[in-house]
This record gives sequence, structure tokens and C-alpha cells, in this order.
Amino acid sequence: MFFKITVAYDGTAFSGWQRQRGQRTVQQAVEDAWQAITGEAAAVTASGRTDAGVHAVGQVVGIESGTQLACSQLVMGLNAKLPDDVLVRRVEPAPDGFHATADARSKRYRYLIHNGRMPPLFDRQYVWHVPSPLDADRMHEASQRLVGTHDFACFQSVGSPRESTVRTIQALTVRRGNWTTGFGLNNDDQIAIEVTGDGFLYHMVRTIAGTLVRVGQGRRDGAWLDEVLAGGDRRAAGQTAPASGLMLMEVWY
Amino acid sequence: MFFKITVAYDGTAFSGWQRQRGQRTVQQAVEDAWQAITGEAAAVTASGRTDAGVHAVGQVVGIESGTQLACSQLVMGLNAKLPDDVLVRRVEPAPDGFHATADARSKRYRYLIHNGRMPPLFDRQYVWHVPSPLDADRMHEASQRLVGTHDFACFQSVGSPRESTVRTIQALTVRRGNWTTGFGLNNDDQIAIEVTGDGFLYHMVRTIAGTLVRVGQGRRDGAWLDEVLAGGDRRAAGQTAPASGLMLMEVWY
Repeated sequence: MFFKITVAYDGTAFSGWQRQRGQRTVQQAVEDAWQAITGEAAAVTASGRTDAGVHAVGQVVGIESGTQLACSQLVMGLNAKLPDDVLVRRVEPAPDGFHATADARSKRYRYLIHNGRMPPLFDRQYVWHVPSPLDADRMHEASQRLVGTHDFACFQSVGSPRESTVRTIQALTVRRGNWTTGFGLNNDDQIAIEVTGDGFLYHMVRTIAGTLVRVGQGRRDGAWLDEVLAGGDRRAAGQTAPASGLMLMEVWY
Repeated sequence: MFFKITVAYDGTAFSGWQRQRGQRTVQQAVEDAWQAITGEAAAVTASGRTDAGVHAVGQVVGIESGTQLACSQLVMGLNAKLPDDVLVRRVEPAPDGFHATADARSKRYRYLIHNGRMPPLFDRQYVWHVPSPLDADRMHEASQRLVGTHDFACFQSVGSPRESTVRTIQALTVRRGNWTTGFGLNNDDQIAIEVTGDGFLYHMVRTIAGTLVRVGQGRRDGAWLDEVLAGGDRRAAGQTAPASGLMLMEVWY
């Protein structure tokens, strides 16, 4: 039968999701734990790869298995075997043929910016530190130009060619708030960029974050975003923001 | 002149506060940063040592210096030189002869427990994971027996003999809440034990935490705490809770 597994991880010490020889990866950790408790050498699918240093609250993993263990036993068993930077949150039965990559309909990412002169401390591995003041409202307003169906070629890093670079962003919000608390050290110093879409190109969310930061600094305006989108040239957009700030929040099937 | 420096640190990768040959310590990091920006080889004092793995939001450090740099320049300069797990929050002028250890009047510590079957993830280095259900109200009620002036010999680990083991706890609270957010993974799974006192013996807060957990699990009651206190025997109290859950919050002078 098929299972759908919801996995969270701190990506800091991983070379990303995908199994690679000689690297510490989340896929390998999950497959090893699965084998340890079921005896099966199973190959898992995921909603998508995440890069080195990128985190997940709700990565979705698919697996076909003959195990007789109940879902709750699988959760407890996997967590007992997994390293402390990976956590299985749920295991559920999935429809026959479930494939976590192919069946994903949309995903939500959050990019978190620590926006203050003082560096972050307890949450430093989960944010990007931007010391210069950012206007989150201005960023939000400009970002609405990215919502909808567009050719996002300008927001794609080289290295992962796709047939089409057209994607649909269903929602994009930029809000100032306090997501990690940081034990009271960084109240209201955080800005979250939340992006929901039907699919994402390589480094797309991180490039959107780097681009919106330029707008938030007042160096660019919303009209510039239209030009960047229309031009299709990666060099026109902002920098690729660091991996640490990116979190895969949720995947819908 | 004398300066009072408020320092926060993630203790995970440090062998505690105090300088030790061949070990990575917070004191060494602060002294190295001070030397790098002022050229002075200064010896600093702190409100107290913290053990390996213990964190601080508000450690206070004293230093005598001939520097001409302004306090705000010292903050920026120190943070530029310090590793990313230490943060200088404030630098202020201090009265002549200021000694961070000798002049400390009281301190507040927070011990944080992650109380849920699911392990913690993003905040795992800042908590103690206790999977069995704890009754925080019962812990709070029992803990009030420790408030006041007592001989806390029973809550002291061997290895650091003091002249007197009498201390005064000015306030002690046990509350369920949500201190780190953990990106929404652990809502309401946390219990904070906050202790304010005029001084603390070696491992005292961690032993109080380990002892109160027994009460929270229903294995012991408040009357047992009176017996433990009266007996003065370390073996009668609960375990020394792990360093990761302990945070030095604030020091008063």
C-alpha cells in the first residue's frame, strides 16, 4: 500500500533533500529510518527537492510498502530512528499509485528575513539578516504584480532546465511580524514573504525574496518588477537570497 | 573607565562561559573581540559562569578599559568580530570598580521543557524534551515551597563547594506556554520554569527542574519537596535536567 508522510527538518546540516553519494541528505535519513523499522529498502518520492540549508515544516514524502505497522507506530518508530534534525509529523494512507512529486498541486513557501541592525541569534539558521530598513508594505504592494500566471524565467537560476518556465503564483504576501520569537531578542524585526504556487523553478522563491528586498530598500519600485518579468533575463532580477531563510510550509494534493 | 556589557549567546557549541585552555568558551570569544577592536588585552568579569550548553539572553559582563570608542561603536564593533552564536546587546558605562560577579544582586533563569510525545525540532537545542504528560499547575503549586530563604544543599551538584548553601529564591513560576514558537510545530507543548534568586549553587536550577518534573508526572507531591529541602541530601532530589533547557535571562545590580 501507499503512504503519505509529512516531514519537517532543519536543513542547516543537510546537503538538501535529494540523495547524493557521500553527502548527508534528508532523503537518505528518511530511507534509512524506514529500512530500520520495516526491513524494506524503500525508495521514497518527495513533493520536490529542497536545496542545502533549506528547511521544511511540511515536506510531503510518498512511499509504497508492504509493512503491517499502523500509521501511529510508523510515526513513533521513524522518529526514534531519525536524527534530531528530522521529524516525521504524520503518516497517512495514500491513494494507490500516490507519487509525491507528480501529484503535488500546489505548495506554500515562507521566506523569513531578520530585518534589524542587530544580528539574529537563536534563530540565525532560519533567517536572512538584512540590516538596512525594509518597507514591508511597499514590498507587499509591489509583489502583487507577480501573482497570476507568468513566465518566471527571470527568477530562475541556471542549472536546472525545464520545458516551460510558466508558473502560476496563487498568493503572495509580505508581512512584518514575529515568527520565531528568538526569546524576545527580535520582536517585530522579522518580515515573512509567503508564496503559494502550482510549481516553482530552481531558486525561484529565493530570487523573488532577493528582488523584493531591493524594492523594500527603496532602490526599485513596482514598475521595475513588471520590466524584470517581461524581460525574462535573470540578471535583471535581484540576488538569490540565502538558503537559510527558506522554509517549505505546506503541499496540497 | 568601566563598562557593563549585556551579552546573549547560544551555548550549544561552547564549553560554557569560563575561559579554559583548548576549549571554545564565550569568555574567550568576548575577550578576543574586545582585543580586536580596542587593541587591549582585557580580562572580563561575568555575573556568573554558565555551563557547557547553557544559553543566555542577558548575561552581564564587566570590563575596565581605556578605550575612546563610544558605547554604540563598541556594540557594532564587537558584533562584527564575534562569532554568530554570541551577540552583544548593549554596552553601558558602569560605576567605578564595577565587578559583574561581586556586584550582582539577583538573577533570573528560565528552564524550558518541551512537553509532548513528538520531539522538538527547530528549537531542540533550547529545551529539554519530556515526553510524558506534565501537570504544570501542580508543579507551580509545589514549587512555591522553594520560595524564600532555605539551605539548598540538596539541589547542589558536587564539585563546587561554597561556604554557605543558603540562598533566597525571590520568585518561582511554572507556566505552560509557547516561548519559541518552533514555527508552529509545538504550540502549547512548552513549560517554562522561571526562577529569580539572589544567587544559585552549582546545577541548582537544573536540579530544581529535574525535581519539579517528578512532581509534574505525579510521582511525587509537594510534601516531598519539603522533605528533600529539610534532608539536605542531593540524592533525595530529582535528576539534574540537561543544560540545553537552561537560559540566563536577566541580572540585576
